[in-house]
This record gives sequence, C-alpha cells and structure tokens, in this order.
Amino acid sequence: MQQNRTELETLGEFGLIKHLTQYFVPKHPTTVRGVGDDAAIIAPEKRDHVVVTTDMLVEGVHFDLIYTPLKHLGYKSIVVNLSDVYAMNAIPTQLTVSLAVSNRFSLEALEELYSGIQKACDWYGVDLVGGDTTSSRSGLVLSITAIGMAAENRIVTRAGAREHDLLVVSGDLGSAYMGLQVLEREKEVFRANPQAQPDLAGFDYILERQLKPEARKDIIELLQRLDIKPTAMIDISDGLASEILHIADQSLVGCDLYEDKIPIDPGTIKAAMDFGLDPTTVALSGGEDYELLFTIRQSDYEKMKGNPSLTVIGHITLQESGCNLVTRSGTLIPLTAQGWNAFHNDSGG
Amino acid sequence: MQQNRTELETLGEFGLIKHLTQYFVPKHPTTVRGVGDDAAIIAPEKRDHVVVTTDMLVEGVHFDLIYTPLKHLGYKSIVVNLSDVYAMNAIPTQLTVSLAVSNRFSLEALEELYSGIQKACDWYGVDLVGGDTTSSRSGLVLSITAIGMAAENRIVTRAGAREHDLLVVSGDLGSAYMGLQVLEREKEVFRANPQAQPDLAGFDYILERQLKPEARKDIIELLQRLDIKPTAMIDISDGLASEILHIADQSLVGCDLYEDKIPIDPGTIKAAMDFGLDPTTVALSGGEDYELLFTIRQSDYEKMKGNPSLTVIGHITLQESGCNLVTRSGTLIPLTAQGWNAFHNDSGG
Repeated sequence: MQQNRTELETLGEFGLIKHLTQYFVPKHPTTVRGVGDDAAIIAPEKRDHVVVTTDMLVEGVHFDLIYTPLKHLGYKSIVVNLSDVYAMNAIPTQLTVSLAVSNRFSLEALEELYSGIQKACDWYGVDLVGGDTTSSRSGLVLSITAIGMAAENRIVTRAGAREHDLLVVSGDLGSAYMGLQVLEREKEVFRANPQAQPDLAGFDYILERQLKPEARKDIIELLQRLDIKPTAMIDISDGLASEILHIADQSLVGCDLYEDKIPIDPGTIKAAMDFGLDPTTVALSGGEDYELLFTIRQSDYEKMKGNPSLTVIGHITLQESGCNLVTRSGTLIPLTAQGWNAFHNDSGG
Repeated sequence: MQQNRTELETLGEFGLIKHLTQYFVPKHPTTVRGVGDDAAIIAPEKRDHVVVTTDMLVEGVHFDLIYTPLKHLGYKSIVVNLSDVYAMNAIPTQLTVSLAVSNRFSLEALEELYSGIQKACDWYGVDLVGGDTTSSRSGLVLSITAIGMAAENRIVTRAGAREHDLLVVSGDLGSAYMGLQVLEREKEVFRANPQAQPDLAGFDYILERQLKPEARKDIIELLQRLDIKPTAMIDISDGLASEILHIADQSLVGCDLYEDKIPIDPGTIKAAMDFGLDPTTVALSGGEDYELLFTIRQSDYEKMKGNPSLTVIGHITLQESGCNLVTRSGTLIPLTAQGWNAFHNDSGG
C-alpha cells in the first residue's frame, strides 16, 4: 500500500509521539495544554460537568485490516468514542489516543492512521491532548478516551425515561452490519481466488456506514435548537434491542417497540434479502450504527414531528409490561438483547 | 496459581465489566456518575482545572507475568498514572481502566488484577468510573486514563524553571531498576533449573520498588503544607537524566546536577555493585522510580531544608550552559537522555 517504509524504531517512543502529533494544534477554548507534559490541562466552563468515556479496539476482534483502510480506522475509532459523548447530550472537547503496535507497521502506516484521527478531530472540533505509544507483540490495539462537557442541567443519562414517553431513534439501522457482511463475503471470495475483483457495486451506503460512520453531532445540535431535552439517551453501538433494554433497565420501565416503525434504508433491506437475513433482526441486533436512541415527553412531539432525521419507534410503558416488539401482524414478542426471542417469555432486561 | 478457573466467555462482555467493577463504589465528591452509562459524569469544583493523562501497559513489553503477581500489576498500573497527575501538582480523582485479555486468563485471574486496582483506588482516594473490556489474540493489554484536579494557580508544568532555581528530587533513585535486574536474573536461573528456589533475600526494598511502587501523594501534600509551589515538575519514570532534560528543554534553561547529591539507597548501591553496574548510571537511566523531580525558588529552600523526603541535587543555569553532571571529581559532563555521554559534547537536550 505504501511507497515508502520507515521502520518505527528509527524514531524511538518519544520521537514517534512527537512525529505523529505534530500537526495536532489544540483549538478548543477549554484546552489549556495538550500533548507534551505529564498530563494535559483542561479548563471546563464554570457550570459545566465533564463526561468521560473510553473504548478499546483490537485488531482481529474489532477491525480487519484486510478491508479497513488505516485512515478509515483512525476516523472510526474517534467516532465510536464521540458517539458516547453525544449520547450524554454533551459536546466532545478533548481526547487521548494510545496505541500498541507491532513492528509489522511502518511509520507511513501510522501516519495514515493519524491522518484519519486528525480528520475526525477537525470535523468534530475536538483536540487530541495526550496518549501513549508502545510496541506490541502482535497486531494493533487502539485505546481512546474522549472527554466532553455540558451544562449540568443538559446532561442526559439512560435512567430518566418515564411511562408514556416516546421512544425516538435517529437515522436508520442495520446498515453497518450489512456493510460488514458484504466485506466479509468479498474477503472470502478473495481468499478463494486472489485474482477476483471485489463486487461492491450498489453497496456504497452500507459500506460507508461500516467503514466510515459518523457520530450524530447534528442530532445533539438539532435537539438544542428544537428545545428538546431527552428524558433518557443512549448510543446504538450494540443493536437497537440491547440498547432499549439498557434504557428500560436503568429507568425501571417497560416499552413497546413497533416493528413497522423501525427505520431501515432500502439498500440495507435489499442487502439483508440477498444474504437471506430478516431486516428487522438486522436492525435489532446488528450493531455499530452509532445512532442515538432517546426518549422524549409526549409534549415535545410537536417540536420534532416531520423531521427526517428522527423517527418515533415506540413508547415507554410500566416496568411490569416488560419490553416488547409489536410485530407487523400485531403480535407482542418479548425483546431480548439478542433481538427477540419468540419462544421465551422472559423480557431479558 | 488459582484453585478455581472460570472461563471468561461464561460472563460475556457486559457481565464481565459488571462483575469486575461491582465493588467499586464512587466516593469522590466530584464523581456524579461512575460505571454504567455511555460516559461517566464528573463535576469539577468551580475554579479547578482538570488534568488528564494516559498510559498503556503491554504484556511482554512493560511487565512479565512470570514474576509479576496480577494483584501487584493492577496496583502498579494505577500508580504509574497517578504519578503523572501528582507531577502536575494536582490531586487524582477519577480513572478509567480498559483491558484486552486473551482466553489464557480466567475470571479469577482478572479478579486478582482488579483487587490490586481497587487497593490503589482506595489508598489514593480515586474512583474507577469507566472502562472497556475486550478479548485479545495474545496476552494482556491495560490502558488507563487518570483524571485529576487542582486550582488553576496550583498547577505546575515542566516549563517554569528559571536560572538559580534549585533542582529537588523526592525519595531515592535507581532502586526499581535494580529490582528488575534481580527478578530477571532469578527468571534465568529458574529457566535453567525449574527446581531452583529464587534467591531474593536482602532485596526486599528494591523488589518492592519494582513490583509495588507508590506515587508520591505525600510529597504533593507536603509541598502544600510547606507553602511551596514548584516552578516546574515532572515524574521520574524514565530515569533522572531524561526527565531533567525534559524540564530544561521546556523551560529553556540549563542545569548543573551534582553526582554526589543524587539520593541512592544503600541496598540499591549494593545490588548495583553485585551486578557490576555503576550506581550513578542506574539512578540516571534506570527508570520506573515514580519519584517527583521539581525546581523551586531559592527563597523556598528554608521551608524544605532538612526534610528527609527531599534532596537538592543541583540548580538551574542559563540554557547556553547546557545540562551537565558535576562528577565527584568536579568534572562537568554533558547529560544525555541515556544518562551521560563522556565522549560527546552535545548537551542532548
């Protein structure tokens, strides 16, 4: 892939960090000091709370470098973390990036990775303020911590949903999972016949959702503009079903989710059909969509109705009712973290 | 090592985090919400700045489980990060712990690791507020981010040292490195003859410095009590020489370091002699001491003199003078990040 190959040991640990972070200039007003001291220094606005979230991405577990360009991986690794900050109704401000990397990787490869990280930092207005670089005996491990801020009374947890609240989701679901299926299929084809050209035509949307997802910064800004404060919120990284159960679990409520309301892109439906998968199952359990799932008071419905980015998919009930999928035929089926379970009466929450 | 062995897959990712963090109860007044939402929530005191630091520890690179008990590893992994927070003259308040772990590890092994983490959290008064747990294809990778707070005017960077300031170090140096040499020697003996008993007698102090170091919380408290604000500060994780060069580099100054003032424990000197190493070289380049190196105004000397935890080892000069070791015989030798270099005139800064 790279024309040049510079071995990492030519820079040493300090030289490597310095080299990789040289074009990251702190821009956020709350960043007092970025990379270069024992710790970064941040000055939160007076009444703001600070939120902190962290994710670790391991080669061979969370990503496959056979079909993931390093620049996309860098971008996505940031997005995954920012999505958690937005899910608190907060604005991400700083992050740290640590990586363990084997000598299989060249300096040019890490530059690619960091160019994706920088692109995400620029797009989302976040400062890289620290990190660590170390060798690993095998593969690449990325560990990212994101920091965000919000006024105390703006922060939204998973625990505030109440009976009669509406369940709302941003964007559409299941596309990232179907993108992964296409990539895995083409990888198998390539393994069987390295001369074969990958057949990715018509899958642009779902591939982009898998390889270069975005965090819903725009939704947080929209909610602010619409003067809606969700009563509970979570990001959909593990599939709609398990995230609904988290909200229900922590808010001590139940919910009814309507199958026919779940937003699924036509391209995702077509891909699911191609693979013999049920689109609803894919949306419920696929994961990696990085959309926001939240609950709002019914009185806020007028403010949001008709917005193309938001879909009401159900409503909150009492805890005794459990969490159910209301199918197209009107049948109630208990939701489980695996999507649903038609043969089991436990709500799985 | 363990009597029981519970495979990690029996819990799943969510179950594992929940299980390992179940006894971590947030206690710090600034922790609003710990583990369990998309992000932790922190409420800094009104005028406080927030400092953030992160470290990644990789099996086979930073630790060897042949001679490192998992409980000690957990404890040390926290200490390493807290030391960076103290080096900013700040008080650590929260941390996140992420780990990638292969199925070689049992649940009981991770419980050991977390018991060490918890012990450090309790001792240093820090809350575990988040983290991530994932599988790895080989070995154990720990990534820790520590957060601390201090009033804006209390924070100390590496950049404030001025000519005539005194260079001060806490504790003594080189012991952790010598502890590592003893452990490595006994590992080789064990490899050659698995029936051999390790010969660790008389090495208690240096072994403890390697396996269970402490961060100098007490020094930060002492400086506060003595009403001394260092002009620059750094923690000694990579050996005295390279840390002095960091302060000189960022403060745009030079320094004279006196060989005969460097505090070295008699046990460290003896061990160095046993291994045919020069104790001064070990102190200058050994690393992992987690002591604090700082500069103070001469006018603060009266406040600290005679304190057994603090040693004046040199003074700050103009940048043109470079950074030098003044040997016992009075010779000036330029310091380099590797300790010193008697054959090279470059200051190495």
